Amino acid sequence: MSGRIWTAALVVIGDEILSGRTQDRNVAQIATWLNVQGIRLREVRIVGDDEGAICEAVNTLRARNDYLFTTGGIGPTHDDITVDAIAAALGVPVVIHPEARAILEAYYASRGGLSAARLRMARVPEGAELIPNSYSGAPGIRVGNLFIMAGVPHITAGMLDRLTGQLEGGAPLLSHTVGCWVPESEIADLLGAVEKAHEGCQIGSYPFFREGKVGANFVVRATEQARMDACVDALVAALAAAGYAVEEGGI
Amino acid sequence: MSGRIWTAALVVIGDEILSGRTQDRNVAQIATWLNVQGIRLREVRIVGDDEGAICEAVNTLRARNDYLFTTGGIGPTHDDITVDAIAAALGVPVVIHPEARAILEAYYASRGGLSAARLRMARVPEGAELIPNSYSGAPGIRVGNLFIMAGVPHITAGMLDRLTGQLEGGAPLLSHTVGCWVPESEIADLLGAVEKAHEGCQIGSYPFFREGKVGANFVVRATEQARMDACVDALVAALAAAGYAVEEGGI
Repeated sequence: MSGRIWTAALVVIGDEILSGRTQDRNVAQIATWLNVQGIRLREVRIVGDDEGAICEAVNTLRARNDYLFTTGGIGPTHDDITVDAIAAALGVPVVIHPEARAILEAYYASRGGLSAARLRMARVPEGAELIPNSYSGAPGIRVGNLFIMAGVPHITAGMLDRLTGQLEGGAPLLSHTVGCWVPESEIADLLGAVEKAHEGCQIGSYPFFREGKVGANFVVRATEQARMDACVDALVAALAAAGYAVEEGGI
Repeated sequence: MSGRIWTAALVVIGDEILSGRTQDRNVAQIATWLNVQGIRLREVRIVGDDEGAICEAVNTLRARNDYLFTTGGIGPTHDDITVDAIAAALGVPVVIHPEARAILEAYYASRGGLSAARLRMARVPEGAELIPNSYSGAPGIRVGNLFIMAGVPHITAGMLDRLTGQLEGGAPLLSHTVGCWVPESEIADLLGAVEKAHEGCQIGSYPFFREGKVGANFVVRATEQARMDACVDALVAALAAAGYAVEEGGI
């Protein structure tokens, strides 16, 4: 339990998520990527294509986290209002980024040219840098510790790849999973006792029903390998004493 | 555009979502179900297993929406703190619900009996009613317009099924999708103009890249069938005039 914990928040922007039309994939993708950078995803908000809602979420979350990510709403159509909303939240004007314009001019040179709608994708909050887009023209945007990413998951994945190793973080959160064919309610006290005896470790219990039987996966999380290993060993021993064998890596 | 719009918010509770271990399925599932009830999902927050974070989200969102749902954290283990956190948010004590105790006693009669850990699942904020669980013993919980649901998606689905038709709502949000093999940036102005000309309608544009080609699905949303149909007709005609055929129902 040493060292500062770095945190991030995420604002997922889009009516299509709130209507149920589109299944979000960016929360899990960004959470997993952040863990590797030594940064914890602490909170997520999903809001519609509404400037007031975006501003509120952005300003609240950036004030209390080291990093803030957004996904969605940076395309060329009328419902893409993320850049305008974030500029309003930051109190800065929207400007055309010259490098983004050059990228889009090159990308659309063989695709009908850079129309006014396409030029929208070169608009950034003043003071921003670009995050390269490996799949299509329109770049992501970085304004200090605020990262404005695409909504389409594979485009966001490419942008995350370009940011890998660029963000200061702490010790990555380690995790170790063991699975067990036991109703979690039978060993609930045991789980709580093992967690309490191992400072710096959390044990999550995730029940399931499969092949006609109930079971659970137990995930031990810690930032220090030795503490995590000791907690896992104690948990496996306690389950064995209660008559339950575990499956390494989960079921 | 007649009638009141009923809104709901959702708080997804669980470290496993924020760590990226578990892909959430409840946002899309609850959003879709709410649409059918004539209720709009307006905002979602995802928070960890942390009482302060749960309280903040619950109290903010219930104050400004007609309904509030939560998912996750109602099992028997030490990391299941949703009931305690919500009772604290509401300023009421946690009590054992006699009917929930009876349900759990019956459910566990042939499964080793009702231990202290299992009895945790009969704990509710004072004044609560139960939402039947069709798949396992532990019920969901209703406190006024606050609905405390399971985290496991198929258990939540069963609880939603039991609530169908029970909640007052307005006109369901209708939607109609047409797909088109066109880069959305080519017809962005057209989309905006059609939306602007059709009060009470929103057009969402969702681009994709498939079979080596770019395309987009356009979703027209409205609460009135006639307005939606007119907007769809105008959109299809405008796309045809620009040289693009649509595929009904989307691509």
